[in-house]
Amino acid sequence: MTRPVLHNYFRSSTSYRVRIALALKGVDYDYTAWHLRKGEQRSEGFLVLNPQGLVPALEWQGATYSQSLAIIELLDEKIPTPPLLPADAEGRARVRSLAQMIALDIHPINNLRVLAYLKEHFGADEAAQADWFRHWVTLGFDALEARLASEPQTGSFCHGEAVGLADICLAAQIVNNRRFGLDMSRWPVTGAIGARLMEIDAFRRAAPDRQPDSE
Amino acid sequence: MTRPVLHNYFRSSTSYRVRIALALKGVDYDYTAWHLRKGEQRSEGFLVLNPQGLVPALEWQGATYSQSLAIIELLDEKIPTPPLLPADAEGRARVRSLAQMIALDIHPINNLRVLAYLKEHFGADEAAQADWFRHWVTLGFDALEARLASEPQTGSFCHGEAVGLADICLAAQIVNNRRFGLDMSRWPVTGAIGARLMEIDAFRRAAPDRQPDSE
Repeated sequence: MTRPVLHNYFRSSTSYRVRIALALKGVDYDYTAWHLRKGEQRSEGFLVLNPQGLVPALEWQGATYSQSLAIIELLDEKIPTPPLLPADAEGRARVRSLAQMIALDIHPINNLRVLAYLKEHFGADEAAQADWFRHWVTLGFDALEARLASEPQTGSFCHGEAVGLADICLAAQIVNNRRFGLDMSRWPVTGAIGARLMEIDAFRRAAPDRQPDSE
Repeated sequence: MTRPVLHNYFRSSTSYRVRIALALKGVDYDYTAWHLRKGEQRSEGFLVLNPQGLVPALEWQGATYSQSLAIIELLDEKIPTPPLLPADAEGRARVRSLAQMIALDIHPINNLRVLAYLKEHFGADEAAQADWFRHWVTLGFDALEARLASEPQTGSFCHGEAVGLADICLAAQIVNNRRFGLDMSRWPVTGAIGARLMEIDAFRRAAPDRQPDSE
């Protein structure tokens, strides 16, 4: 297998997702850092990898891929073991839906570029930005907790006893939340799953504070 | 096949995506409307369908599904013809990535509930909300245009000559954009694809102005 190159940033939640998936699949890769706070993801060098100017991008087998969920599904299709999605279509729909509750309806709204817009155009100070962040996390995690606590498919992890796509998105979001002072006490079922995830070696190795560009 | 029930709102872009997919797959369904501007998606009757309080939700074969992209992939897996994703893993990654550029990085940031927060907490008037909406669309569509114009896989549609998941997201976003005065002249390749999509019967029948709750 060609050795992939992951273009990413230690603190980026979407980068963290792909690092977890690569670690779960046992894929070694080269790590290339782009410093988001310095705007390196908008440099010409990065834009040829992804015109969207967003990390992560994965160079693999002669092509470059963007969007963390699409990258993870590609990895799952090309390297089927261990699977990151259930074997049944209904289970896949549930796991994708749980993942998307975080990846669509929490994370993009709280992204760095959105917080920067709030500051620039609405004068949002750090406290107002933190309120914004916590608002969207709380809305999303309240719904996530309601589902995980009530749906019979929930197990030790988001879907049964195997780690998958929803767990990857959950772990990355929980770590992100800590930067804004959000602990998991409000969401006990979700928090228990998160605590189990943090014990898994692949999740630990992929964590922001273990990356070469960590500050 | 059990007749599905689509819980949705005529103007919702995510609802429109699922309606297009159902139409492309030739699935008849019952249409249940929840009025977003009246907050009906946060009523108890809707929250039992989806605790997230977001349309659409699809009742089908004894289960209820949420998140438009997950629903569309479920439909594609259960009803394979016509396929909405390419046959090869690399193609699927590309189509999912293009779809997610819209479904993750444009639409959720511009959702009704976000605009309402801007108004309530930052005093954003209609003009400021429209600037916000156009800003995220423009960033996303500039990147989409760069990819669609340069990547050899682009055809009459986002990926070759068959309509798929990325086209569904694109069409729904283009229709949404019109409400904020955004035409496609800035993005000629993307706009030409959009114009072709609007000629397709399934896209026409699924359009907001053709739904029973249209105002």
